[in-house]
Amino acid sequence: MIELIKKKRKGEALNPQEIQYIIDGFITGKIPDYQISAFLMAICFQGMNDQETVTLTDAMMRSGDLIDLSEIKGIKVDKHSTGGVGDKTTIVLAPLVAAAGVPVAKMSGRGLGHTGGTIDKLESIPGFSVDMSRDEFISKIKKNNVAVCGQNAKLVPADKKLYALRDVTGTVDNVSLISSSIMSKKLACGADAIVIDIKVGEGAYMKTEEDATQLAKILMSIGAKMNRKVRAIITAMHQPLGMAIGNALEVKEAIETLKGNGPDDLTELTLKLGSHMLVLGNICSDYHEGRKILQDLIDSGKALEKFKEFVIEQGGNIDYINNTDLLPQSQYSFEYKSQKEGYIHRLDALDMGLASVKLGAGRETKTSPIDFGAGILLKKKIGDSVSQGETLAILYSNDKNHFEKAISFLDNAYDIQNEPPQLQPLIIKTMM
Amino acid sequence: MIELIKKKRKGEALNPQEIQYIIDGFITGKIPDYQISAFLMAICFQGMNDQETVTLTDAMMRSGDLIDLSEIKGIKVDKHSTGGVGDKTTIVLAPLVAAAGVPVAKMSGRGLGHTGGTIDKLESIPGFSVDMSRDEFISKIKKNNVAVCGQNAKLVPADKKLYALRDVTGTVDNVSLISSSIMSKKLACGADAIVIDIKVGEGAYMKTEEDATQLAKILMSIGAKMNRKVRAIITAMHQPLGMAIGNALEVKEAIETLKGNGPDDLTELTLKLGSHMLVLGNICSDYHEGRKILQDLIDSGKALEKFKEFVIEQGGNIDYINNTDLLPQSQYSFEYKSQKEGYIHRLDALDMGLASVKLGAGRETKTSPIDFGAGILLKKKIGDSVSQGETLAILYSNDKNHFEKAISFLDNAYDIQNEPPQLQPLIIKTMM
Repeated sequence: MIELIKKKRKGEALNPQEIQYIIDGFITGKIPDYQISAFLMAICFQGMNDQETVTLTDAMMRSGDLIDLSEIKGIKVDKHSTGGVGDKTTIVLAPLVAAAGVPVAKMSGRGLGHTGGTIDKLESIPGFSVDMSRDEFISKIKKNNVAVCGQNAKLVPADKKLYALRDVTGTVDNVSLISSSIMSKKLACGADAIVIDIKVGEGAYMKTEEDATQLAKILMSIGAKMNRKVRAIITAMHQPLGMAIGNALEVKEAIETLKGNGPDDLTELTLKLGSHMLVLGNICSDYHEGRKILQDLIDSGKALEKFKEFVIEQGGNIDYINNTDLLPQSQYSFEYKSQKEGYIHRLDALDMGLASVKLGAGRETKTSPIDFGAGILLKKKIGDSVSQGETLAILYSNDKNHFEKAISFLDNAYDIQNEPPQLQPLIIKTMM
Repeated sequence: MIELIKKKRKGEALNPQEIQYIIDGFITGKIPDYQISAFLMAICFQGMNDQETVTLTDAMMRSGDLIDLSEIKGIKVDKHSTGGVGDKTTIVLAPLVAAAGVPVAKMSGRGLGHTGGTIDKLESIPGFSVDMSRDEFISKIKKNNVAVCGQNAKLVPADKKLYALRDVTGTVDNVSLISSSIMSKKLACGADAIVIDIKVGEGAYMKTEEDATQLAKILMSIGAKMNRKVRAIITAMHQPLGMAIGNALEVKEAIETLKGNGPDDLTELTLKLGSHMLVLGNICSDYHEGRKILQDLIDSGKALEKFKEFVIEQGGNIDYINNTDLLPQSQYSFEYKSQKEGYIHRLDALDMGLASVKLGAGRETKTSPIDFGAGILLKKKIGDSVSQGETLAILYSNDKNHFEKAISFLDNAYDIQNEPPQLQPLIIKTMM
């Protein structure tokens, strides 16, 4: 291992046997963490070439169980987002593309830090459960074309262990390490094709369009070498997506979007990602056709019907979907008002995500309980005009004491100026 | 700690509080090895500036006991070598400069890997011991002006722990880490002034004169900031120093050198280093005067007398010094002969050091026993002419089976060509 660390330190490429040796040694504990972390830091400086990144992805993918979805007919298209605030696209997309005929076998995570998790959001629907055996998961998809389950602990253990080490050794933000982490998980879950939403902005892993483009290229290159179709959409994450941040608040917004009444940005992103999923799933031949199919499913109510089937199948109480006012609501609210008149130039996604965690909507540690009703409902977004004293956002929490901390993040999140800002596009680039 | 790793990864300088925090956390175990190793790798890429290196040296020095030599009158001048093969200069220098009036309070190490250790060499003299209390150490120096003891386990624990981690994480060869390791130990041992012999060559830490010069500059800069005079002599370590490699063989050669009959290179290096020690110790005002004093001490037999006093004081049997043929000798010998006629162009120090270890003269692991008589006696050095079948070196071992492995290293060590080589100087540069 010492020689391999030195080799990477010198900037040389490691061969597949060497990378396999490192992953095996790390998983079995034969190579200690302090050697792995030195190796990771050397990668941060010297990088890995495409072949090394593919080999690493493959070795990580095979470090645990592999999900076999071959029983399910059709091309299984998965979606991945690099993580954003207010991002409830999976909740809209899963039933939507399932209604269009793409089998959706979705494994999702819980929230940690400033971004929420799809499972936490769905669990704000009373009765909804992601606990199921592999066979139940497959049979639900066969029946309804859609199911969401939690991440299997036996899936890609190398990534779990490696990520935990990267997190505490300042070696998270390297494009090869990020790519192999994303792709090893998606491939182990049995995806035939993947649409990846790469978020760019201060609150995202990728700070610049250039970095995001580089990540997209590597993800697509791994996909090509592993015989999986990959498309990458680079999207802005300067401000939260949609108007709602927080679990039940986001479910409600997702349902509105499935009805055709969602906020513009969430609707646009969902149609964009979904159309590419339809093309990859061989449901249609081009993006515009896919978009029309999805719009028809929303307009006809079929998308919402599929969502209800999905919720019932996973034990959720449908009354809460028929009347979303029944969903968990926090006891206290606070109207956050503008100190001055002008146009919103900045509405920082990271600050809003952190404020939402402080209100009780997210976890500060892995075992923190979640207040499903807590969160933030935005009333204004970037480019909107506000008058002095007008409400910018409403905060919700079951604990009045939480408002003060959340407000300090909001104070930091907004920048209001006299002139209207130049608006940035939500969808920056599509790569395929 | 994560933030400090990221800071160094970005190439920013750490302030003294931050460096102190890291060393304290490392020593107490509050900062885990895997974070320290990632930090060390970041240093290997981003370096440390002079101020950071001084702070690191100071924090390491103060991580354990500090030896107080103030009871001993005079300027305590220490010598350090970055490590070479056949380097027995300490055994010659310690009594020689002590005879000239410089108090020599020497803490030495044991050998590991391809370089031998001064203590192992001295222990080949029956009865010789380095076990003594701090008070005994001081009183011996007061009496004879010279004593050699083992390294105290309580001295510079940060360096011991850090070096062990660097050794297994590919982070040994960074000039700031090497400098702080050297200087923290010398300063903790109470040295007022230090002469450093920086070896350059394939078998040394420093591969090029440029690297050695950079190391010298940093060592002198640390010395200046910590109010200690430092001189650095950059010397060649392409071939072994002197003709003898192996413990008793080297002691015998050191005694010959103290008598004025040593090999040219060892004699020259000893006079060079010793003269600078005399100047730093205020025994004389310039290098040339120092050299004359030392030559006189050798010629008059006073240097050898001082060596005998020193050996007796530390329990050694003086009969073995009066008749060095009594020193341990290995049972078997093998004459390694030249396959062809020509001039020696290459006589690789690293290969010869490793061959000597294979013969039993060194340790492959910390607990390996030592065969004091084992080693190699060179008959020819770089530039010498040899005829086919002429003996290049004689190998000694107590185990006949060891010859084969050692010979394979020797086969690799020599390069013999038809034309005489251009000779490289032993002393490359003196920096002060």
